[in-house]
Amino acid sequence: MDLVLGIDGGGTSCRAALATASGVVLGRGKSGPANIMTDLQGARHNIVDAARLAFVDAGRDPALIPETDAVLGLAGTNVGGYKQQLLDILPFRRSLVESDALIALNGALGDHDGAIAIIGTGSIFMSRKGKAMQTIGGWGFMVGDLGGGARIGRDLLQETLLAHDDIHPASALTQAVLEHFEGDPREIVKFAAASKPADFGTFAPMVFEYVAQGDAVAAKVLARAVADIEEALDALKLSPDQWLCLLGGLAALIGPHLSARYQPMLHAPEQDALGGAVAMAAKLFGTAGVPAHV
Amino acid sequence: MDLVLGIDGGGTSCRAALATASGVVLGRGKSGPANIMTDLQGARHNIVDAARLAFVDAGRDPALIPETDAVLGLAGTNVGGYKQQLLDILPFRRSLVESDALIALNGALGDHDGAIAIIGTGSIFMSRKGKAMQTIGGWGFMVGDLGGGARIGRDLLQETLLAHDDIHPASALTQAVLEHFEGDPREIVKFAAASKPADFGTFAPMVFEYVAQGDAVAAKVLARAVADIEEALDALKLSPDQWLCLLGGLAALIGPHLSARYQPMLHAPEQDALGGAVAMAAKLFGTAGVPAHV
Repeated sequence: MDLVLGIDGGGTSCRAALATASGVVLGRGKSGPANIMTDLQGARHNIVDAARLAFVDAGRDPALIPETDAVLGLAGTNVGGYKQQLLDILPFRRSLVESDALIALNGALGDHDGAIAIIGTGSIFMSRKGKAMQTIGGWGFMVGDLGGGARIGRDLLQETLLAHDDIHPASALTQAVLEHFEGDPREIVKFAAASKPADFGTFAPMVFEYVAQGDAVAAKVLARAVADIEEALDALKLSPDQWLCLLGGLAALIGPHLSARYQPMLHAPEQDALGGAVAMAAKLFGTAGVPAHV
Repeated sequence: MDLVLGIDGGGTSCRAALATASGVVLGRGKSGPANIMTDLQGARHNIVDAARLAFVDAGRDPALIPETDAVLGLAGTNVGGYKQQLLDILPFRRSLVESDALIALNGALGDHDGAIAIIGTGSIFMSRKGKAMQTIGGWGFMVGDLGGGARIGRDLLQETLLAHDDIHPASALTQAVLEHFEGDPREIVKFAAASKPADFGTFAPMVFEYVAQGDAVAAKVLARAVADIEEALDALKLSPDQWLCLLGGLAALIGPHLSARYQPMLHAPEQDALGGAVAMAAKLFGTAGVPAHV
């Protein structure tokens, strides 16, 4: 019997699932990071290791890896020549390397038309209507990723400095942020100069916490993020019967704050990204159907 | 006859003026950068060198430096212990080290009450009403410096990406920016990730150029910058009879776009920052009057 592999590789870990040709998962494996942009050989090693562990978990012989087809969802596939470099050294029989967002979309929507919004440290939006795919947003927190946690955190630090200068009103939230920096706005500036997006993102949960307490600055920062997210969703021109799945670390926090027009479209994801990769592999290489969506 | 020195030190050069006790300039000198945060000894060297050249220019003996009082305006005086470290090694008889903004304010306003807005790569606002001084803004472009050139440039790059994604409308300006990056939005992301504030600031002049041509995106980006600047000015609570001097690289471009309520308050600076340092030195150490504003 032919087997297929689904692989979901990210900056912190790589997961693999071994499945039958019709997409029934037989075993799973997990290994270290698979970041093809920063460590191509390390990524290849962890991808193969996760696959090997999935074979072992399924009670199958990992020696079959070179006879197995795989769908891989990875970050960085749209940048430079990383994708082709990886394809050249992968050990699978046939490999399809796609973006991490695409396998997440296929997992979340299943066979439904609609879109995903991945709202974590960054933000990216992807829709599928029949065979038509569209991806917008992303681009990193410096000039993009609007509505993501890093932008929310950066916005909060800016509001705290504006409040300190009496340019905008202060609130319990800006007071709490300033106290976090020992009352010294220069410490905020130092933090901002030294911080990565994820560091800014650590301030996003405070915004949601203070919104629940009626804080005006928190409400303003959140309203800006929600407006940015909805402008991106609007650009996808979804119809009311299509699905909208929120994914990423802030999905559960953002969901309740979306406008009434998007509330009825919200659905829980059918499967996670790894499930999406398996489903794509079964459709493309197995017996699960015509590869309509790859 | 007693002499006084005014010194204006910055990241690219240091200028000195030697003046009589009543503030009449006798000679000037210019040397290299005086950045006390990155190179204290180098800053000290260039400060003394500029002073020495001012003595020579005035036909006076530089050996008089240790008998001369000086007012120095320098960046970085509010950070860490740099100011005290510099004071410990300066060769002048008495030294007053103040911020670069304060000498600029004293030069621009002369004896008038009012404020300066320094709009260059960054933005900072400073008012003086009698003896009451207030400084707001600054804080760097990541979480502050609203309305400055770096923020205008960053905002323009973001609008270009939003237009590329059909989230916001495109315009001749966003087309021109995208063409600058060879039509590839990923090049904008790369630029943003690698750029310093001044690099973002290089895009600010395009905004003013396209505003003059009626470009809608340019108008929106400029309107945001003007609104941010006026929010800061509003916080200074100036009265209509007080002076407002715009300084910095974007002053001449921003001025005409300020609201009607600020137009009558705009005045050309009486003197530059070096003139402000000389005036302060003559008042504090010379015979030009009681040191009302230092």
